Amino acid sequence: MANNPNCESLSPLQLFQRVTEQGEKVRALKAGKAPKDEIDAAVRMLLSLKLSYKATTGQDYQAGLPPKDLVLINNGTNKEEDEDFVDPWTVQTSNAKGVDYDKLIVRFGSSKIDTDLINRIERATGQKPHRFLRRGIFFSHRDMDQILDAYENKKSFYLYTGRGPSSQAMHVGHLIQFIFAKWLQEVFDVPLIIQLTDDEKYLWKDLTTEKAYEYARENAKDIIACGFDINKTFIFSDLDYLGTSTGFYKNIVKVQKHVTFNQVKGIFGFTDSDCIGKISFPAIQAAPSFSSSFPQIFNNKENIQCLIPCAIDQDPYFRMTRDVAPRIGQPKPALLHSVFFPALQGAQTKMSASDPNSSIFLTDTPKQIKTKILGKAGKSKEMNGNILINHFYLTYQHQITAQLLENLQSMLSRQAYTSGELLTGELKKVLIETLQPLIAAHQERRKQVTDETVKQFMTPRKLAFEF
Amino acid sequence: MANNPNCESLSPLQLFQRVTEQGEKVRALKAGKAPKDEIDAAVRMLLSLKLSYKATTGQDYQAGLPPKDLVLINNGTNKEEDEDFVDPWTVQTSNAKGVDYDKLIVRFGSSKIDTDLINRIERATGQKPHRFLRRGIFFSHRDMDQILDAYENKKSFYLYTGRGPSSQAMHVGHLIQFIFAKWLQEVFDVPLIIQLTDDEKYLWKDLTTEKAYEYARENAKDIIACGFDINKTFIFSDLDYLGTSTGFYKNIVKVQKHVTFNQVKGIFGFTDSDCIGKISFPAIQAAPSFSSSFPQIFNNKENIQCLIPCAIDQDPYFRMTRDVAPRIGQPKPALLHSVFFPALQGAQTKMSASDPNSSIFLTDTPKQIKTKILGKAGKSKEMNGNILINHFYLTYQHQITAQLLENLQSMLSRQAYTSGELLTGELKKVLIETLQPLIAAHQERRKQVTDETVKQFMTPRKLAFEF
Repeated sequence: MANNPNCESLSPLQLFQRVTEQGEKVRALKAGKAPKDEIDAAVRMLLSLKLSYKATTGQDYQAGLPPKDLVLINNGTNKEEDEDFVDPWTVQTSNAKGVDYDKLIVRFGSSKIDTDLINRIERATGQKPHRFLRRGIFFSHRDMDQILDAYENKKSFYLYTGRGPSSQAMHVGHLIQFIFAKWLQEVFDVPLIIQLTDDEKYLWKDLTTEKAYEYARENAKDIIACGFDINKTFIFSDLDYLGTSTGFYKNIVKVQKHVTFNQVKGIFGFTDSDCIGKISFPAIQAAPSFSSSFPQIFNNKENIQCLIPCAIDQDPYFRMTRDVAPRIGQPKPALLHSVFFPALQGAQTKMSASDPNSSIFLTDTPKQIKTKILGKAGKSKEMNGNILINHFYLTYQHQITAQLLENLQSMLSRQAYTSGELLTGELKKVLIETLQPLIAAHQERRKQVTDETVKQFMTPRKLAFEF
Repeated sequence: MANNPNCESLSPLQLFQRVTEQGEKVRALKAGKAPKDEIDAAVRMLLSLKLSYKATTGQDYQAGLPPKDLVLINNGTNKEEDEDFVDPWTVQTSNAKGVDYDKLIVRFGSSKIDTDLINRIERATGQKPHRFLRRGIFFSHRDMDQILDAYENKKSFYLYTGRGPSSQAMHVGHLIQFIFAKWLQEVFDVPLIIQLTDDEKYLWKDLTTEKAYEYARENAKDIIACGFDINKTFIFSDLDYLGTSTGFYKNIVKVQKHVTFNQVKGIFGFTDSDCIGKISFPAIQAAPSFSSSFPQIFNNKENIQCLIPCAIDQDPYFRMTRDVAPRIGQPKPALLHSVFFPALQGAQTKMSASDPNSSIFLTDTPKQIKTKILGKAGKSKEMNGNILINHFYLTYQHQITAQLLENLQSMLSRQAYTSGELLTGELKKVLIETLQPLIAAHQERRKQVTDETVKQFMTPRKLAFEF
């Protein structure tokens, strides 16, 4: 079967059968641990067939539930809903509501951030929990309770997060982890380390090392513009820092000794045709989880606990890291996982810096922001209602009354936005009025970030903490 | 078939058939690009069966030539002689005379160092060619003519060689490349860079990074004791230098982008069960072939030509490097290949620092040297005559008359030493008298090498050359 199926001539039932067969094929490929690109292609085909099915029948495909003009035989398994595909490079789902995060928690073996944990964070820090916690933007964790145990016993920890500098421009989705990391740093008063994986982007993209490093420095400006404290924050590029740290490479090679090709094949879907740089890269994202990678910050101490706030698609790296940690005598890093920020057009994939129409960029003008949110006939599609409410609004709208939140959640649960039910016009207006000044203020702060400031943030040095 | 065949009960003809079958199996595995460990095990089995055959029949196995008490049917193919196995970790041959180097040149696609080239080196440098060149210890090269072209046009180059510090003690075999590198450095007056792959030894052996680094520093003392000029020589440990060089990691990641797992599988025999550190390591041995790995020495110049004197078992790394070089805009390194220094007991494998009886160590006492060469009833076997003449004597005996050399070569060609023909006793005496003072003098010079001197050699710095 070719990649672009010609489905116009198929009947609804034939299409139903094609989708069912393709779903079985995807499951078989996954069960047989087929190469990632093969699974990936099969998943794309599945999504494409489902779209054709919907276009033809006006209904969402449901496993075991043939098109409505046929006899209904629902076997109740609904297996197709499991087809979310999530790894550090691809997020794809057949579900218009987006990835099913509850299922992801079960599949990844992480823990849900529940009210108890949120209350405990409030008690420990004496601060109102960030709206990202209250609104489920950060929804999953690993060992956050241990971090709080340690914190309550006056044992310090540090924060580590990162960014792959694939282009000059960052979008509003990228801000989430940095806004949250800033809040964590402030309420816990701990060092924050930010890795810019320019080597990863060199390996994966058609970029020179010089270009990847330039993007790293440009991205650092946007990150610094979030307002980080220069005395408590270290930002580094891999291409740069690896050659200036006495501890980083030693941890990389230790991780590399304890992970086999079979393992990275299973976790990341690498194949025999992948370059050895990609194959060994996961160790480079793992190593900053260990404090000995930063002897200048931690006074050569080896066992400072690490907490990583990141989007859940980065979890595979840290599952691997947590598996290796005890075998190289290091503590496992703890994690706080956020949802991905979806593309404007729908929640099936994540927002991508490489597709200008999929995102609102930190460089967008007020007019561009308005156009992207309202849509413009014949140019960009209207923003998907789910995305509008569930992501943009909940993420960036500080003030939401209890009543409005309830209304929004009710709309979400009834998928009322898909029928264009009231409010979305008004919500869009509010969202435009929120994002325009927010992004303009970011642009203003970014202008103040000089090359000298970037250099200071990126210089390996002691921070304002004693270890 | 188990790894240790119980062959005592087999007839000579049955054994002959077992060897023949195993030879075919090895060829099939190699042709089918089977995993290295599988081929390796099959080769070991083949060697073991051949030993059993010899023990039973008193004859060396020859393909197509059944044991003498049977009808002779020699089909003249002698395929078994092709069974030399050579990679950076294993040198095995079924031939008691050792690896067939002429065949290796054909198989590896390198060029023989012939009289013309040796004469050209003499003309270019105005110096008598080193005995290692005249006696075929360095026997193969890649692009040495280009180095000489450049040298004659006043364009500079640099020397790069290395050592894997697997233990504290080095043996006389290890000295060859350093003695030769020193001569090359002196006659061409160029920088010499020596890589100590402590990361490799950490990855391959049951060693901590600390221990591997300690061995690197101990080995550096032996290397320095060879008499290198501190103003012209830079020695580095990977674990150390990677974290202090702005250029080294960038070249490593460039090589890693341009080599796939399929390629390193083909070249080095890695399998899916190997750790990702081993899989990506070849790039770390490749990168010092590019002058931008040493910006402090080459004034950030990128295209200084490199010449690598090394034992031919290291060639796979540099075949890979030469393949990648043009794709990352770098000149291909040139090479000068030496034979391996074989184990005392026979030329089937190379001398190993891990087996104390296989080698004469730089730490051996005069008595140990004497015992190892003469052999001692019930303890170590007598030194193999071929090894004695072809390696030790030709390598370390400076003065050999033309007549003696002719006699020795005649003995070698007739394999006369195996029948214990005259001279060997006398040669051994001369060899003992050569090696005892040579090693004692080395030990004396090594004592003079302080930790401070090691530190100076291993500090990244400009050398006494302008680029």
